[in-house]
Amino acid sequence: MKRCAMCAALVILSVLTASAEEGMWTFDNPPKEAIQQKYHFTLTQEWLDHVRLSSVRFNDGGSGSFVSPHGLVLTNHHIARGQLQKNSTAEHDYVRDGFYAPTPDQEMKSPDLEVNVLVSMENVTQRVHDALAPSQTPEEQFKTRQGVIAQIERESTEKTGLRSDVVTLYGGGEYWLYRYKKYTDVRLVFAPEMQAAYFGGDPDNFTYPRYDLDMALFRVYENGKPLDSRNYLKWNPKGAEEGELVFVSGNPGSTDRLSTLAQLEFQRDYELTHALSLRKNRIETLARFSATSPEHAREAGSQIFFLSNGVKAITGMLEGLENPRIIATKKADEEKFRSAVEADASLKAKYGNAWDELAAVVQKEAPRVKERFYHTTDSRLSALAGYIVDYVAEIKKPNADRLPGFHDSQLESLRYEMLSPAPIYADMEIAAITGALHRNLDQLGPNDPFLKIVLNGKTPEQAAADLVHGSKLEDPKVRKALIDGGQAAVDASTDSMIVLNRNLDPLRRDFIKWFQDNVESVEQRAGEQLGAARFAIYGRNTYPDATFTLRLSYGTVRGYPMNGTIAPPKTTFYGLYDRSASFNNKPPFNLMPRFAEKQKELDLSTPLNFVTTNDIIGGNSGSPVINQAGAVVGLIFDGNIESLVGNYVYDIKANRAVAVHTAGMTQALRKLYGADKLADELMGAER
Amino acid sequence: MKRCAMCAALVILSVLTASAEEGMWTFDNPPKEAIQQKYHFTLTQEWLDHVRLSSVRFNDGGSGSFVSPHGLVLTNHHIARGQLQKNSTAEHDYVRDGFYAPTPDQEMKSPDLEVNVLVSMENVTQRVHDALAPSQTPEEQFKTRQGVIAQIERESTEKTGLRSDVVTLYGGGEYWLYRYKKYTDVRLVFAPEMQAAYFGGDPDNFTYPRYDLDMALFRVYENGKPLDSRNYLKWNPKGAEEGELVFVSGNPGSTDRLSTLAQLEFQRDYELTHALSLRKNRIETLARFSATSPEHAREAGSQIFFLSNGVKAITGMLEGLENPRIIATKKADEEKFRSAVEADASLKAKYGNAWDELAAVVQKEAPRVKERFYHTTDSRLSALAGYIVDYVAEIKKPNADRLPGFHDSQLESLRYEMLSPAPIYADMEIAAITGALHRNLDQLGPNDPFLKIVLNGKTPEQAAADLVHGSKLEDPKVRKALIDGGQAAVDASTDSMIVLNRNLDPLRRDFIKWFQDNVESVEQRAGEQLGAARFAIYGRNTYPDATFTLRLSYGTVRGYPMNGTIAPPKTTFYGLYDRSASFNNKPPFNLMPRFAEKQKELDLSTPLNFVTTNDIIGGNSGSPVINQAGAVVGLIFDGNIESLVGNYVYDIKANRAVAVHTAGMTQALRKLYGADKLADELMGAER
Repeated sequence: MKRCAMCAALVILSVLTASAEEGMWTFDNPPKEAIQQKYHFTLTQEWLDHVRLSSVRFNDGGSGSFVSPHGLVLTNHHIARGQLQKNSTAEHDYVRDGFYAPTPDQEMKSPDLEVNVLVSMENVTQRVHDALAPSQTPEEQFKTRQGVIAQIERESTEKTGLRSDVVTLYGGGEYWLYRYKKYTDVRLVFAPEMQAAYFGGDPDNFTYPRYDLDMALFRVYENGKPLDSRNYLKWNPKGAEEGELVFVSGNPGSTDRLSTLAQLEFQRDYELTHALSLRKNRIETLARFSATSPEHAREAGSQIFFLSNGVKAITGMLEGLENPRIIATKKADEEKFRSAVEADASLKAKYGNAWDELAAVVQKEAPRVKERFYHTTDSRLSALAGYIVDYVAEIKKPNADRLPGFHDSQLESLRYEMLSPAPIYADMEIAAITGALHRNLDQLGPNDPFLKIVLNGKTPEQAAADLVHGSKLEDPKVRKALIDGGQAAVDASTDSMIVLNRNLDPLRRDFIKWFQDNVESVEQRAGEQLGAARFAIYGRNTYPDATFTLRLSYGTVRGYPMNGTIAPPKTTFYGLYDRSASFNNKPPFNLMPRFAEKQKELDLSTPLNFVTTNDIIGGNSGSPVINQAGAVVGLIFDGNIESLVGNYVYDIKANRAVAVHTAGMTQALRKLYGADKLADELMGAER
Repeated sequence: MKRCAMCAALVILSVLTASAEEGMWTFDNPPKEAIQQKYHFTLTQEWLDHVRLSSVRFNDGGSGSFVSPHGLVLTNHHIARGQLQKNSTAEHDYVRDGFYAPTPDQEMKSPDLEVNVLVSMENVTQRVHDALAPSQTPEEQFKTRQGVIAQIERESTEKTGLRSDVVTLYGGGEYWLYRYKKYTDVRLVFAPEMQAAYFGGDPDNFTYPRYDLDMALFRVYENGKPLDSRNYLKWNPKGAEEGELVFVSGNPGSTDRLSTLAQLEFQRDYELTHALSLRKNRIETLARFSATSPEHAREAGSQIFFLSNGVKAITGMLEGLENPRIIATKKADEEKFRSAVEADASLKAKYGNAWDELAAVVQKEAPRVKERFYHTTDSRLSALAGYIVDYVAEIKKPNADRLPGFHDSQLESLRYEMLSPAPIYADMEIAAITGALHRNLDQLGPNDPFLKIVLNGKTPEQAAADLVHGSKLEDPKVRKALIDGGQAAVDASTDSMIVLNRNLDPLRRDFIKWFQDNVESVEQRAGEQLGAARFAIYGRNTYPDATFTLRLSYGTVRGYPMNGTIAPPKTTFYGLYDRSASFNNKPPFNLMPRFAEKQKELDLSTPLNFVTTNDIIGGNSGSPVINQAGAVVGLIFDGNIESLVGNYVYDIKANRAVAVHTAGMTQALRKLYGADKLADELMGAER
C-alpha cells in the first residue's frame, strides 16, 4: 500500500470523467474518440454490430460469444458448471470429470440454459420521462413508470416476437428498449475437468497469476440443427501481445459507481455485512452436509462454489468501502458534483434535493433491512413454490400492475425456470432449510412473523423435514400441473411448499409494497434526477453503472505492481506445474492426471492466462477478449483481487481482468483432450 | 488487508512476550522450553556450540557457515558481490559472468573480506554497571562506560589475541564480551552469474515467490592452506519438508523492537525520510553516470544494487511506521509496560523517567538531524582520507578517550579496510561528489559550514573534479605511507582529500561531541534503565534487538496468505521458467543462457527457494537454514515484503524468511555449472 498525495486526486478524475481504459460502455455510446486518440483505432459501426451480434448472455448469469459459423459458443467452465451439475448423476459426475462430444449426436442438452443475443437497442427515455408528471408523488411516479415500461415491453414483444426489456441506465437518466433473440436448445460440446478449470480453487479465485483452463464450449441449436451463426468471432490462437489494444464484450452484472455516499455507507454498514454473513452461514450448512457422504458433497459442490465466490467478492467490496481513501475520494467526488448542481439555480431547483432524499431513504430502509436477507428458507423447492403461487395470481392482472419479475416480457424465461428438470436433492433441501431457520432465529428472534409461519411451532429440524417430505414439487410435471391448473389448482393444493408459500404470500406482498412505496420509488425519482444532472454537468462522455446488459470495454494487455513486485502480463504452462509442485500436488493445487501424463507433449512456454486493463465485473465471466481485427484472443474468467473494489472505483494501476489465452486453450484441446476436431472448427476448418 | 478485531491484540502479545517463532535469540539464552514444548526437540549445549562454531560473520555485512571440513563457506552471491566486483576489471566481469575454480590453485583471493567466528561469550554486565555511579551525569556515565568497555576489550585482546567486542544488548540491560576468531585469507570458489542469483532484479527483491540461485562458496585459508574446519554443517540435499522445524544461525543487523514510541516517531518523521531521500538521490546520480558507458555501468552496478536494496527496505519500514495499526500496537505496548513500572514504587523511582528523557532527546536531536545525513560527499576517497586523518590522531590517545571506531579492538579491521586494494574509479568519484553536493545544497543551503568548506567558493562540478584530481589516495601504497608516517605525514600532506578532511575534522568532532553529550549518553542511560525494567517485569524470557551479532531463530517451513491467495512453502525450477516466459525473457527476468540450453537435463520439479517463519532481518543474508540434525537444508537470502516491518514487529501470519533450497543448489552445481567436484565436497566425499 503505497501512499501518495496524488492518488486521491487521480481517482477523483477517473470517477468523474472516465479516464482512459475505464468504463463499461453501452454499444450506442462507445468512447470512439478516446480510442482513436490513444490507439489510432477507428471503432466502426460495422465492427460494433459484428461484435454485438457475436456476443451472448446466459440466463445463468454469464456471458459468451459465437466462435464458429455453426453455433459454437465459448464461455467459462464456471458458467457451464450449473448445467454440468444438473446433467450429472451419482454415476456420471461431469463437473468433476469434464465432458467432450466428438460428434454432434453426443452433444448434451442443457436442462435450463438460455442464450440471449442483443439484436436491437432503442432509446425510449423520452417516452418514459414524458409519462411522468412532476406533480406526481414518488409512489404515483413509480406506478406510472412501471406501467409505461411494461407497455413498451409488451408492444415490442407483440410486434417482434423478441424478448424485450426496458433497461434503466444512469440511474434513470436514460431508458432503453433492448430486444433479444433467445435460444433454449443449447448443448454442451466440451468442458474440462473442474480441477483443470478451477486449479487453485478458492484460494486462487479472484487472484492472479493464475493457471486455469476455465473454458467450456456449447453449441446453440435452432429447429434441431446447429445454428447458422453468421456473426461469430474468428479464433486467433496467437492471442494478444503485451500492450496490445483489446476489447471485452459482455454483460457486467452490477456496479455502484454512481451511488451517493449515503447509499455506499448503507451498503457498507448493512447490505454487505448481511450478504456476507448469509453466505458464510450457507457455506457452513452445506459443508456440514457435504461431510456426510461423497454423494452429498457432489450435490452441494456447485452451490458451495458459487457461495464461496460470493464471500470473497463481497469481502473485497466491503474492504473497499472500509478503505478511508476510497470513501474520501467518493466524498470529494460527490461534493464537487453537488456544488456544480447548486451553483446553477435551475439545476438546483430540479435536482438539488436528490442527495438528501436518498440519505433519508436509507434511514428508513435500515430498520427493515434484515427482512430482505433473512425472510428466506434457502430452499429450491420453496422458491419454485413461491414462483408458482405468485405466477397464477399475477398473470390475471394487467401487465403494469404485476409484481416485478412477472411482466409479460419475463414470463417465457420464468416458465422455463419453473419447469426446469434439474434435480433437487431432498436431503440437501432439509439441511439447507434447517440451517437457514437456525440462522434466521439468531438474526430475527422467535417472534418474527415469517419465522412463526414457517416454524409453525416446530423446531427448525422438524419444520424442514415436514416441508420437504410433504412436497412433490421436485417433479417438474407436478409443477406443470399446478401452473396449468391456475389459481384454482394452487388454492386447492395441499403440497406443503405450496401451502407454506400461500401463507407467506401476504407478508411478502406487504414488504414489496412497503419497499416500493418507501424505497424504490424515491430511489428511482432521485436516480432520474441525478442522471439528468450528471448529463447536464459532465455531458454524455460517460458510462452507466452495470446492469447485466451488453457493454464494451477497452484496454491493453498489461502486468501491474503486485505485493512489492510486478505481476506479469501472462502466465504459462510452466507456472501451472510450478504451483502444483510448490504445494506437493495437494488439492486445490493438484494436477489432473492427463496434465501429468501428457506433460512431455506440451510446449510449457505456451501462454495459459493473461491480464488486461479492461474494466469488467461479475457477469462478464465468459466474455470474449477481442482484438482490433474482431478476432477472439482470450476468454475473461475473473478479475484480480485488486479489482474487487471495482464495484465502486476503477483504478488502472492494479485493476485487471483475468483471461484464458487462446494459445493455451488451443494447446489443451489438441494435446491434452484429443479434441483436434473441435480445435479445427475453431481454427476455421470445415466441421 | 484483512481487518480483524483480534489483530491488534495478537500483535501486542507477540511484542511483549515473544510469541512462538518470534525472536532473534542470543546463543546464551535460546528459548529451549518453548521449542521443547512445541516441537519436542531438545536444544543441547553440544548442538548449540556446534552450530555457533560453524557460523561465520563477514565484515561486508552478511552471514555464512562452514559446509565442509576444508574451510568451505556458504553464503549469498549478494554478500560475495562486493568481492566479485573488486576482483573484476573491464576484461573480466565476475559479477556478471560468475566464477568457478575447479581446483584450489584457481581459487580467487578476496581483496578485503574478513570472516569472524564467535568462539566465546562472556557476560560483563556487572562490570560495566558497577563502573557507573548513579550520581554521574549522563555525559560522565557515557565516558565511564566507554572507558570500561574499551578496557575490557583491550584486556581480552591482549590475553587471547582474539578480536574482542563488548556488545550492548537489551539497550544496555546486558553487556557481553564476544570474542571472534578472525580469518582474512578468504578465497572465492564459486559464484553463479549475477542474473541467476538475482533473477527478478529489483522488482522481485524482498518478495516471494522467488527463483534465485543467490549462493556463493568461499574457502577460508589459514597459513596458506585450506582451513581444517572441524565445526561445519553437513549438507542435506533433500532440504526441509513443509512444517518441519528449522533454525537460522546468523547475524541480524539491527532492529528497533524495543524502541519507545517517541523514538519510533522520530525515525518515521526524520531518520527514515532522510535515509530514503539520500539513497534515491545517490541512485539517480549513479544511474546518470551508468548511462554514459557500459564500463561506467559496470563500475556503478554494485553500489546501485545495494542502494536499491536499501530504498525498498526503508520504504517498507517507513510504511510500517505509517501504518496506524502498528503505531497503535506499539502505543498500547508501551502504556502497558510503563504502567507496570509506575505501579511499583521502587521501579518507578529507578526507571520511571526513561520514557520522558528519550522523548526529550529526540526533540533536541531533530533540528540537527540533517547534518547526520548530508554532511557527506558520498566519496570513497574522502571516506578513506577521513579514516586516515582521524586514525593518526586517535591512536595517540588512551584507548578510552578515542572516537568510536578507533578502539584497540577495532584497529586491525580498520587498517585492513584502509589498505584495501579494491579499485576506486575517478570518474565515478567525481560524479558521486557532484551529485552529493547539489543534493546537500538543496537540503542545507549554501551557508552550511560543511558545504562552505567543501565547495570553497567553487561549483559542485569544479569542487568534485579538483578534489578527485588532486588526490592520489586511490593507491593503497599512498595510504600506507600516510598511516606509517603518522600525524606528521598527515599534517604535511597536500593531497586534496587529506586537506579537505583536515579542514572538516573540527566540524566532525564538534558534532560527535554534541551528539554524545546530548543524545547518545542520555539514550544509553535510559536504555540501561528500560532494559533493567523490562527484565524486572517480563523476566529474561525474551530477546534483545539485533546488533549484527550471532543469533539463533527457530521456525517452520510454511506458506502464508498473500494478496488474496496463499504463497506456497517452496518454489521449483518450473517457476523460474514460467516467470521468465511470462515476461518474454526480458530483463530482469531473462534466463542465463545455460539455463535455457540445459533445461532438458534438469528435473524442473526440484525445489529452488522456500520460506520459513524464522525471525530474521538484514545481516542474516547468507545464514544457513539448519535442521534438527544440525545439517544445512537452505541458505537465507531475503525476507518477503511482509517482513519489512520486522524492524518493529514480528507477525507470524505473513513474515517470512526466504531461502535457497539445498536441492536447488545441488542440481544447479551439478547440471548447470558442471561443478560436480564441489557438489561432491558438499556431499561429504573427499576433496
